[in-house]
Amino acid sequence: MVRPQFSQLDEAGRLRHFLTTEGLCRETLTDILDTAESFAAVGKRAVKKVPLLRGKTVVNLFFEPSTRTLTTFELAAKRLSADVMNINLRRSATVKGESLLDTLRTLEAMHCDMFVVRHASSGAAHFIARNVAPHISVMNGGDGRHAHPSQALIDVFTLRRHKPDFSKLRVAIVGDIAHSRVARSQINTLLTLGVREVRIVAPRTLLPPVPEALGAKVCLSLEEGLRDVDAVMMLRIQHERIQGPLLPSIHEYFQCYGLTEKKLAVARPDAIVMHPGPLNRGVEIDSEVADGPRSVILQQVSHGIAIRMAVMSMILGRRNGVEEPG
Amino acid sequence: MVRPQFSQLDEAGRLRHFLTTEGLCRETLTDILDTAESFAAVGKRAVKKVPLLRGKTVVNLFFEPSTRTLTTFELAAKRLSADVMNINLRRSATVKGESLLDTLRTLEAMHCDMFVVRHASSGAAHFIARNVAPHISVMNGGDGRHAHPSQALIDVFTLRRHKPDFSKLRVAIVGDIAHSRVARSQINTLLTLGVREVRIVAPRTLLPPVPEALGAKVCLSLEEGLRDVDAVMMLRIQHERIQGPLLPSIHEYFQCYGLTEKKLAVARPDAIVMHPGPLNRGVEIDSEVADGPRSVILQQVSHGIAIRMAVMSMILGRRNGVEEPG
Amino acid sequence: MVRPQFSQLDEAGRLRHFLTTEGLCRETLTDILDTAESFAAVGKRAVKKVPLLRGKTVVNLFFEPSTRTLTTFELAAKRLSADVMNINLRRSATVKGESLLDTLRTLEAMHCDMFVVRHASSGAAHFIARNVAPHISVMNGGDGRHAHPSQALIDVFTLRRHKPDFSKLRVAIVGDIAHSRVARSQINTLLTLGVREVRIVAPRTLLPPVPEALGAKVCLSLEEGLRDVDAVMMLRIQHERIQGPLLPSIHEYFQCYGLTEKKLAVARPDAIVMHPGPLNRGVEIDSEVADGPRSVILQQVSHGIAIRMAVMSMILGRRNGVEEPG
Repeated sequence: MVRPQFSQLDEAGRLRHFLTTEGLCRETLTDILDTAESFAAVGKRAVKKVPLLRGKTVVNLFFEPSTRTLTTFELAAKRLSADVMNINLRRSATVKGESLLDTLRTLEAMHCDMFVVRHASSGAAHFIARNVAPHISVMNGGDGRHAHPSQALIDVFTLRRHKPDFSKLRVAIVGDIAHSRVARSQINTLLTLGVREVRIVAPRTLLPPVPEALGAKVCLSLEEGLRDVDAVMMLRIQHERIQGPLLPSIHEYFQCYGLTEKKLAVARPDAIVMHPGPLNRGVEIDSEVADGPRSVILQQVSHGIAIRMAVMSMILGRRNGVEEPG
Repeated sequence: MVRPQFSQLDEAGRLRHFLTTEGLCRETLTDILDTAESFAAVGKRAVKKVPLLRGKTVVNLFFEPSTRTLTTFELAAKRLSADVMNINLRRSATVKGESLLDTLRTLEAMHCDMFVVRHASSGAAHFIARNVAPHISVMNGGDGRHAHPSQALIDVFTLRRHKPDFSKLRVAIVGDIAHSRVARSQINTLLTLGVREVRIVAPRTLLPPVPEALGAKVCLSLEEGLRDVDAVMMLRIQHERIQGPLLPSIHEYFQCYGLTEKKLAVARPDAIVMHPGPLNRGVEIDSEVADGPRSVILQQVSHGIAIRMAVMSMILGRRNGVEEPG
Repeated sequence: MVRPQFSQLDEAGRLRHFLTTEGLCRETLTDILDTAESFAAVGKRAVKKVPLLRGKTVVNLFFEPSTRTLTTFELAAKRLSADVMNINLRRSATVKGESLLDTLRTLEAMHCDMFVVRHASSGAAHFIARNVAPHISVMNGGDGRHAHPSQALIDVFTLRRHKPDFSKLRVAIVGDIAHSRVARSQINTLLTLGVREVRIVAPRTLLPPVPEALGAKVCLSLEEGLRDVDAVMMLRIQHERIQGPLLPSIHEYFQCYGLTEKKLAVARPDAIVMHPGPLNRGVEIDSEVADGPRSVILQQVSHGIAIRMAVMSMILGRRNGVEEPG
C-alpha cells in the first residue's frame, strides 16, 4: 500500500484523518465509495437520519467563509446525529491574542471528536492533523482556491453510479489543470481505480510545466480531448485567473475550451458531464450543457453529502466499534 | 374553493407551500388552527419536543436579517425535531457569482425538505415556490416591510382562544392599512371564518384609494372604530412611514390613532388588544395598554411558534403519512 | 446560610439562577462539584450525551462576541440534549427600536427555559434575572473584562480532583487582584470550602485599597507568595491593563510576577498551576510552565464543560423532577 509522508491512516491502514485522496489505495477508495452508496439512499428516505455519530462532536473550523461547503459538512454531520459547532476563526481566535495551537488545545480539551478545517492555504489541514491530540480526527474542508479533496471521491462515485465498469472508460478533465489540485487528485484516483484512459485538456498556460508527469494523456484541443470519452470532468475557472495574464479573455476561453452541446457531439452519445460547482455559466460551461440531459452536476451535490457522511462515519463510527451505516 | 393563480395547494387541496393566507378556504384555515391548538400545549410541557419531523431538513433562507423571525422558525422546527440550517444569503450566494436558481438547485440536491424564505421584496417566496423541485416546500417568512403571512393566522388563533363564537364578533384593525399586506390578509381571514363585522381604522393617508373594496367597514376616527368591538388588532407603524410625508408627526399620530386606556373605554369591557410586535411604544400603542390586562400581545408570540409548528407539520408531516401531532 | 441581596436561590435554598458564586454555602458548592464530577466522566465516553434536558430551550443572549465562551455553553447544553439558540443582540434587538425588556418578554413567550447572558457590564445578568418570568432561569456567561462567575467553580473543581483534602492546602492567586472579580470569588469559594490558607500576590498597583479585607494573606513578592503552596491560580492580565498606567511594561511585569519554572521552585514539588485562559504567554506565564507537567490548564477547559452541565442540569433538570445526571 502506498503511504504519504504524514499518514492519514492508522497502523491498521484505516482512515484516521481525511486530508487528501493521494496515497489512498484501491481498497480504501472502494470502501469509501461503498459506504457512501448506503448513505446515498438515506438522503431519499423520509427520515434522513442515522444514529451512527450520536454523542460525537464535529467542529467546523472555518478560517475563511464558505457557506456552501459549511452547509454540506453541517448537513452530513447532522444526518449522522452528531452535534455540530461552527466556529468562524477569522473573527474569534486571534482577537484575544491566542495562538492557533492554544485554540486547538482548548477545543481538544472540550472533548470534540473531529475538526473540519477550511483554510486559504493548502497545508493548513495537514498542519492541524499533525498537531492534534490522538482523540481528534481532521477532515480537510478545502484549501482556498484549490478544490476540496473530497471532490475527486464525489466525481468517481458519480461516475461509478453511471458507468460501473471502469476498465472500459475514457475520461477527460478540462480546464485549469496547473492551478487545480483537484485535477491531480482526480487523475490519481481514476488511475488507481483502473480507468482505461484519463485525458487532461487545457491551453499551454493552464498546464503544469511537465504535464505528462501526471500520468494522463495531454490534449491541447477540446475536440481531441472529448473524442469518444465516456465522461467529462470540468474544472472551475477561478475569478482571479480570469482577470490574470494566463487567460486573454473570458470570451476567447469560452470559444476554445468552454463546453457546449456542439463540442460535446464528438464524445460518446451516453457521455456524462460533471462540474464541482459553483458554475461559471458562459465561462467554462454553457447553460445548455449544464442544465441538459447529460449533466450529472446536481447528482454530484447529493453525492457530496453521502461521501462526507461516509468518511465521517468511517473515521468516527469505527471508534465505537460501529463500522457500517445501518 | 377559491384558488390563487399559483396554487400553494396540491391537487387534493392540501397545503404544499405556505405563501399567503389569501385563497385558503374555511376548512384549511380551521385545520391549521386546530393543529396549532395541539402544539400550543406542547410549549407548556416540560419536554417541549415532538418527533414529527425527525430526519427532515428545514433551511432558513434569509436574504435580509431578522433575528426575531429567524428565532421563531428555528424554534418551531427544532421542537418538531427537524434539523435546521440557517443560511444568510446576503453574504454568501452571489459572492462566487452563483445565481439564485443555482443556489436553490444546490440546496434541493442536498435533500432539504423546506425553505423558509425571508426577503425584502414581496414576490420572493412565490418566485422560489414556483421554481423549486417537487420535494421542496416553501414557507414565506415575511417580505420586507410587509408583515409575515402567518400573522393573520396567529391573530385569528389568539382571537378564537378568547372568543370562540366568531359570528358575534366585531373586530377593529387600526393603523397603516394602505401599506400593510397583513391587514388585507386579516380582513380576508376574519371574513372567511365568519366574523360578524370587520372595521378598518386609519387616517385617509394610510387607507388604500378604494378602502371599501377590502370588504370591511371604514372608520376615520378611532372612537367610531373602537365602539363596542370585541377585539382590536393594532398594526405596526414602520419607521420609514414615521419620517415620511404621510404622517405629520409621531405626536399627532399618537394623539389621534395611538391606542390608550382612555380611548379603549368605548370598546366592550372584555375586548382584547393585539399587536404583531415589535412594539412602537408611544407611537401606535401606549405602554399602559400594551402591558395591561386586555393585552394578549405576548400570547400572540407563543401562538406564533404553535402556528409555525402547525403549518410545518401539516406540509412536511403529511409526507410521512403522519398528519397529526402526537 | 449567607444570602445575597437578590437571591439566586429559591425558597428551598436551591439554585434558581446562577449569577455569582458569592453567597453560595458549602453544601450548594459541594453539590455543584459532585454533580460536575459525574459529567466529567460523560466527556470521555464514546457517546457524550445525556438526555437530561431534552425538550428544554437554552438561549445564549450575547451582547458582546465571545466565541470561546459561547462554544462552552453551547456544547454543555447540547450534551444535555437541550435545544440551543444563539442570539447576537448587538445586531438585532434594538435595530427595530425594541427595548431590552420587550425582547426578554418575547423570548419568554416562546417558552424558552434558560438565558445565558454575556454582557460588557457586570450588572447585566442580575438585571435580567430580576426581570424575567418565573419559568426562566438566568446563567451569567461573563461580564466584560471580569471573568465568568463559573471560573471559581472550575478552579476549585480542578483543585479538588488533585488535592481532595482542602484543610491542608495553601493556594496563591497571582495577578490583577484589583480589577478581577474572579479573584474575590475564588478567595470566597476557597475559604468557604475550608482551604487552610489563601494568598494574593500582586504589585501594589494591582491590589485593592484594603486588600486585607478580602480575607486572604497579602504578598507583594512572588517568591514569598509561592513558598510552599499546593496550587497557583494565575489571573489573566487584560490587554487594556498592559497599555495602561498601572503596569510600567510587559517585560518588567513578567520579570517580577510572570510565572516561570525557576520561580515555581519554591512551591511544593507537587504544586499545580491553573490559568482561566486564554493565555498571555510571556506576560503572566512562561510557556515552559503553561505546557509543563504541573500545568492543569487544559483540564480546566474540560472541567468548564462539566461545571456548566452541572449548573444547567441542577437548575433545569430539577424542574422535571430529575435531579441527578444518569
